[in-house]
Parts: sequence; structure tokens; C-alpha cells
Amino acid sequence: MAVSSSLVKVSAASTWEGGVKTRNVIRNFPEFYMDEPEQLGGTDTAPNPMEYVVAALNGCKGVMIPMIAGELNFSFTGIRFETSGYIDPRGLMGEEGVSPHFKKVKFNVYIQTDETDERLEQLKSQVEKRCPVFNLLKDAGVDLEVQWHKE
Amino acid sequence: MAVSSSLVKVSAASTWEGGVKTRNVIRNFPEFYMDEPEQLGGTDTAPNPMEYVVAALNGCKGVMIPMIAGELNFSFTGIRFETSGYIDPRGLMGEEGVSPHFKKVKFNVYIQTDETDERLEQLKSQVEKRCPVFNLLKDAGVDLEVQWHKE
Repeated sequence: MAVSSSLVKVSAASTWEGGVKTRNVIRNFPEFYMDEPEQLGGTDTAPNPMEYVVAALNGCKGVMIPMIAGELNFSFTGIRFETSGYIDPRGLMGEEGVSPHFKKVKFNVYIQTDETDERLEQLKSQVEKRCPVFNLLKDAGVDLEVQWHKE
Repeated sequence: MAVSSSLVKVSAASTWEGGVKTRNVIRNFPEFYMDEPEQLGGTDTAPNPMEYVVAALNGCKGVMIPMIAGELNFSFTGIRFETSGYIDPRGLMGEEGVSPHFKKVKFNVYIQTDETDERLEQLKSQVEKRCPVFNLLKDAGVDLEVQWHKE
């Protein structure tokens, strides 16, 4: 497939630093590291890659909610996100029939708003339809347990 | 579904910081931020969420390659990764029939090794079968263009 110039391109360059640690660079931003806890074979100096993926789900919602709220004239004053992913380690150890990625993801949004439940549902529906990281997990068949809470 | 205690849990907590920016916390590690470039509505103070996802692919390979190389007694002295993902922005703008996440991901591994091509293929095959982030993209139906280079 030829990649169209109208597509948005996102890139990262990384270097193995020994053990299971990597040094990661995105554009001109400061480098950051990934590692694993000791029980997963690392030296626990930085978050691991799948932790960055659940953080990216939060961050992606933190883009899409304000953007779509703007379109819907939906008012809010704050948002917090808490996400946990659950991985069956037998998958990454190579056991047949066990997915190496998320068995389940629990995703909680806490939004400070005086809007009605109906309006909140409208926002949630649009965000879930259009959020890149959310749909990546959804399309991968991950069991997503999503809860939005008004505060 | 009840989540078994034998599953590995990965979590992130995030707070919206105004605009499309989030402050993200993983365990006891230093906070880090996500934002968007100005043309995508942000203030360009940090990488965006999908950039973290492509970095996580690199980081995940940086765990799985050393781990599986150890199992296979495969020797190498260095690894670099370069990943680019391509997103059609019409998807996240809500256009029907356009995926909001990756249309394509180009993933390059540069590995310093004197092992044979056959042994490298054996390593690659195991890594692709077991790498969590790689399989998340694969299961989501992303067009993955993967190249491993011996250096």
C-alpha cells in the first residue's frame, strides 16, 4: 500500500539498553525509558510497555473528550482517568491459545459536569466511536469494561 | 468476568490539564505528559497518545527479543527500533467507514548479530507470536509492515 501524504504519521525510535530496557525518542521531546519489574525480568527503572498503552488510552480520551465536548457544546470542568489492563502471562511465555495482550481492560472516566445523563451518554458515544486508542483495543477484541462517572 | 489473581495488572491514572493535555502517572514513577501538535488542537508540549503506542511497540520488542534470545541461546550485541504509524484523521473526525486508529504501521528492527538468517527467522517468529503490543496491533487488523535487518 502506498501511504498517502494526507495521513497523520506518528513515529518513535528506540534503542535497547541491556536487560529488557529501552531508551525511547519521540520527535524532539526528552528521551524516556521502558523497563520491567524484577519479577518480569527487568530492573524496574521505568514503566513497562503495556503500562504506556493503558496510559495512552487515558491520554487519547483526554484529547477526544475536550474535542467532542467542544463540538457538542458540552460543558465540564475536570476529567480524571483510571485504567487497568489484565494480562495472562502464559500468552507471552508462548502457550498456545492464550493471547499475549490484554485479557481485559477496566477503564474509568470521572468527569466534573452539570450536564444531564442523556447529554453525557451522547458525549460518551461519540468519544467511543472516534477515539483511536480505544478503538485499537476494541478492534483487537479486548474485553473492555467502561464506566463513566459524573462528579 | 472475574479477574484472576494470577493475571499481571498494569495501571495508569491520568488527569486532564486543559486543552488536550493530560498528566499521567504509572506506579511510583515520575509523572509524564501527553499533548497534541498545534495542528491537531494542542500546545505541542509532549508526545501524543498514538506516539506512545508506537514507542510501546518498540519497548515491547525490547523486552521480548532479549527474553526469547535467551531461551534460544541467540547471541546479539545491540538492537535499534524505528516504528511509524499512519492514521487517517477522517476516522477520528467521525467519518463512517474510516478506522480512527492505524491504517498502517511500519516497524523496523536493526539487530547486531552474527547468527544465521535461519536462526534470526526463528527468533523473529517467536517474538511475533508472543509480543503483547505487536499482537494487539495484529489482532486489531492493522496492516503491519515488518522488516528485520542484520547489522
